[in-house]
Amino acid sequence: MREEEIKNLIDFMKQLGYNFCDPKLLFTALCHSSYAHEERQRGRKDVESNERLEFLGDAVVDFLIAEHLYKNYPQSPEGVMSKIKAAAASEDALALIAKDIGLNRHIFLGHGEELNNGRERESILSGALEALAAALYLDGGMKPVKEILVPHMVRYIEQIAAGNIVFDHKTALQELAQEKYKTLPEYVLVREEGPAHMKKFFVEVRLKGRSLATGEGSSIKDAEKNAARLALERLKEMED
Amino acid sequence: MREEEIKNLIDFMKQLGYNFCDPKLLFTALCHSSYAHEERQRGRKDVESNERLEFLGDAVVDFLIAEHLYKNYPQSPEGVMSKIKAAAASEDALALIAKDIGLNRHIFLGHGEELNNGRERESILSGALEALAAALYLDGGMKPVKEILVPHMVRYIEQIAAGNIVFDHKTALQELAQEKYKTLPEYVLVREEGPAHMKKFFVEVRLKGRSLATGEGSSIKDAEKNAARLALERLKEMED
Repeated sequence: MREEEIKNLIDFMKQLGYNFCDPKLLFTALCHSSYAHEERQRGRKDVESNERLEFLGDAVVDFLIAEHLYKNYPQSPEGVMSKIKAAAASEDALALIAKDIGLNRHIFLGHGEELNNGRERESILSGALEALAAALYLDGGMKPVKEILVPHMVRYIEQIAAGNIVFDHKTALQELAQEKYKTLPEYVLVREEGPAHMKKFFVEVRLKGRSLATGEGSSIKDAEKNAARLALERLKEMED
Repeated sequence: MREEEIKNLIDFMKQLGYNFCDPKLLFTALCHSSYAHEERQRGRKDVESNERLEFLGDAVVDFLIAEHLYKNYPQSPEGVMSKIKAAAASEDALALIAKDIGLNRHIFLGHGEELNNGRERESILSGALEALAAALYLDGGMKPVKEILVPHMVRYIEQIAAGNIVFDHKTALQELAQEKYKTLPEYVLVREEGPAHMKKFFVEVRLKGRSLATGEGSSIKDAEKNAARLALERLKEMED
């Protein structure tokens, strides 16, 4: 690691109030694929992107939210808990938590992404937050994740449960489709563009086989979300 | 609990090699909603369906599969792990595990579901398996889940990773269609039969407007899955 990278890690660990036994885990959690790609092109071999950690962290976050809901909302049936979980684990919510804990200032980004406003992008922020959850879990078990990240999740869970925030356009579209059209929206990846490290995805959302909208995004998830948001707008227009 | 219910629990705990500190957790994990519904109509208040446990267990299973993949497939990028996880956590795979551990013989089902062949239904089997994972977790932490259920999951993960089993027929068909025919399969609901509580759905899958197969199922999802499976078989026959 370079000196300024190490400095960044030390700053962030202070802010978190947690010292990693294996700081390399934290380093990897903070490395966006655009940074890993650039650094590897420069010949460095010690830089891995946070994508594999994000994969594990996604499951860690889901599990902790599910456990919190199961234990603290004993009167809520499965359907209600599922909805709250979908919103609390959404990119939007996780991106907010990333900002709450100052993670956005510590992510390592490639130059292109930095110029492209990547530090504000929800997919990048939420991905890094999931990667951080995995890094904490691998470093110290569930305990540090519960102490450091879960309190933030709980704050959003409570607001979502109280109906004070709506995060999830996909869920909103699904509910509308079921209620009004007795069917479920279908998301189909229709196109991919660009080189591997700057891919764009285009997802079409359909209702009963009919295309409603196409969303684009830097991940399939993002593209789906955008498609759902556009579809909701379109359905509203059709109603009016 | 009734005597025959307790007997059933004892039998199953012997089979699992695990004694629950709180057998009520196991009882709830085994209670399908159809059974809980019938028993509550008879005035019993101690019977809860396994749906809330299924919600938590879904996240427990996902997390354990993700952790296994992260630790044991260090060379696999996120996309590959995601595909394997989707297949390993699919209803099909979890229903097979439910049969492997004999869970199918111990589920409490309502009379209607029993007559309707519910004991063979994948959604019921996989739901009960997830509920069992949650019950084990709540009773003894991750340890019993890892000892009792994870080895079964690993067996399927290995077969999926080696390409020996395909669980997610819809994804497999989509990939094949994109690769070979530069198009996406289209699913069309062509018919519904039967009364509301015992509906059958028929979904046709088409490639470039041409019908490939029709699948039936007790839900649209099931019917689509069956259609995809049949379509894959048909495409293979056409190749041979």
